[in-house]
Amino acid sequence: MQYFTDTEKHIDLKEVNRAIETAFADHGRGEVQMPPKLYVTLPEGDFRTMPAYLPSLSLAGVKVVNVHPGNPSRGLPTVMALTVILDIATGVPVAILNATKLTDMRTGAAGAVAAKYLSPKKEVVLGLIGTGRQAEAQYQAISHELDIREIKCWSRNSLNAEKFARAITVHDVRSVSVEKACDCDLLVTTTPSRAPIVRSEWVQEGTHINAIGADAPGKQELDPLLLKRGIVFVDDMAQAVHSGEINVPISQGIFSPQEIAGTLGEVVIGMKQRKSQDQITIFDSTGLAIQDLAIAAIAMRNRRSIDLPFP
Amino acid sequence: MQYFTDTEKHIDLKEVNRAIETAFADHGRGEVQMPPKLYVTLPEGDFRTMPAYLPSLSLAGVKVVNVHPGNPSRGLPTVMALTVILDIATGVPVAILNATKLTDMRTGAAGAVAAKYLSPKKEVVLGLIGTGRQAEAQYQAISHELDIREIKCWSRNSLNAEKFARAITVHDVRSVSVEKACDCDLLVTTTPSRAPIVRSEWVQEGTHINAIGADAPGKQELDPLLLKRGIVFVDDMAQAVHSGEINVPISQGIFSPQEIAGTLGEVVIGMKQRKSQDQITIFDSTGLAIQDLAIAAIAMRNRRSIDLPFP
Repeated sequence: MQYFTDTEKHIDLKEVNRAIETAFADHGRGEVQMPPKLYVTLPEGDFRTMPAYLPSLSLAGVKVVNVHPGNPSRGLPTVMALTVILDIATGVPVAILNATKLTDMRTGAAGAVAAKYLSPKKEVVLGLIGTGRQAEAQYQAISHELDIREIKCWSRNSLNAEKFARAITVHDVRSVSVEKACDCDLLVTTTPSRAPIVRSEWVQEGTHINAIGADAPGKQELDPLLLKRGIVFVDDMAQAVHSGEINVPISQGIFSPQEIAGTLGEVVIGMKQRKSQDQITIFDSTGLAIQDLAIAAIAMRNRRSIDLPFP
Repeated sequence: MQYFTDTEKHIDLKEVNRAIETAFADHGRGEVQMPPKLYVTLPEGDFRTMPAYLPSLSLAGVKVVNVHPGNPSRGLPTVMALTVILDIATGVPVAILNATKLTDMRTGAAGAVAAKYLSPKKEVVLGLIGTGRQAEAQYQAISHELDIREIKCWSRNSLNAEKFARAITVHDVRSVSVEKACDCDLLVTTTPSRAPIVRSEWVQEGTHINAIGADAPGKQELDPLLLKRGIVFVDDMAQAVHSGEINVPISQGIFSPQEIAGTLGEVVIGMKQRKSQDQITIFDSTGLAIQDLAIAAIAMRNRRSIDLPFP
């Protein structure tokens, strides 16, 4: 059994985007096994357990990932993850990966794949609501799929937004008001909000939105009116209904699972698409275990590992 | 993060029995978090993901365990397991344990706890149906709770039964017919059978049965008549209905979840018990994630570990 520690080193983000795209295509064709993730609540956070089997890569495994919002004050990341990989022929654990940064990357890659297929423009003004680790990951991954003309970013904490803006040197980026950030072609929300931040009237026709932040019951970032104005694609039906951007509007009776236009996998394999250039499209991402397997396959290749005795 | 490899060394089985008993008591009082285990099917087996949080031990974690019946022909155990332990305050993974032998032990301990509370006799003739690793674990754990006067064992493969009998030196043990093995005070079934092996007419009044083998949909070892004649306690309602000894009779409409007398946890805290000395009692074990946490707590104490970089 190998333990992989520096899993994010020298990873080619374009290769990650392609691997995630392929995993979503497998999902769209119903060729994966992936029970909805399990949540366990802890006193100051929670952890999620995400098993899956991805036959196209002959990979099976489980990611264990926590969310502890108070961690930064203790010098630890809010989200940390381990992935255990099993040999599909014998079930023996063959690898354990530090998957903290891989989790950021594979979520960014899902956003990039959604933007590739659902953004009507290939040259975009990118609006970022939230400027943390996941905003960075979305930006990096998307930059391999679309031409970013300009970035407008907003954070509840304007110092964070300015710091984020200063760190990006290869694109024109400004820290702006939330309303101005929403006036863009491709809007990416990555906050832990439990109340809508993005108002429908701020969003122009034809915008594609990656709604990334909501990943647990009670979380939401978008005005539910946007879900009605636009069409909603999800990464996985069961997970999105339970814990995605649509979970609060569904629990309030404002949105119904029947209104979901399809999954990203169905979009990737060409079964579903946006209907017109003017339509607003929303990708509701909760994060899939098959994304973790797909990026693990890349991270395990030619990387330094520590040999552990097993069984 | 520590990796614990020789987790079974120098473990005091009596201490394990007490830890498992306490975990069941917590379960009986509803003081644990434990979603039903998730199953993922692989081409030649399956794997199960078992998360839990046990507040009384301040322990949270996940066990990943496979079942690959063809493994022995490749020189590997059928069942192998890893447990990941998280710090409950921050969610950071603090330990990974080789849990293969711990899985045997904690299942044996659940059987010992069930026998302690449900066997009307404290000095017993022990009948074993199946003579593999789990039969050995049940025998070892039970020997710390009850006086074993005699052991009668049976296996589909009589060579295995004879080998098992020869290996035990401290008790009187014989390899016998399946019918004779069932004529005992405490009957333990540990086979992977998908059809009843133990006929009701072979079992005398007042017998306690540990039904251990059935742990996945489609598996069963007992004549469903026994479930009707006796009373059934389960380790966990949801898991037993899905994958325990009662799963096939329930799917056939022969047994109903309403007929379950209670959980082992409820027995341990005194809420439920056998009604008379003559009653047949059955403990339907599927294996709980809280058992894995309880034994991990013991296994991590003062044992050699390998330090791994994380995060």
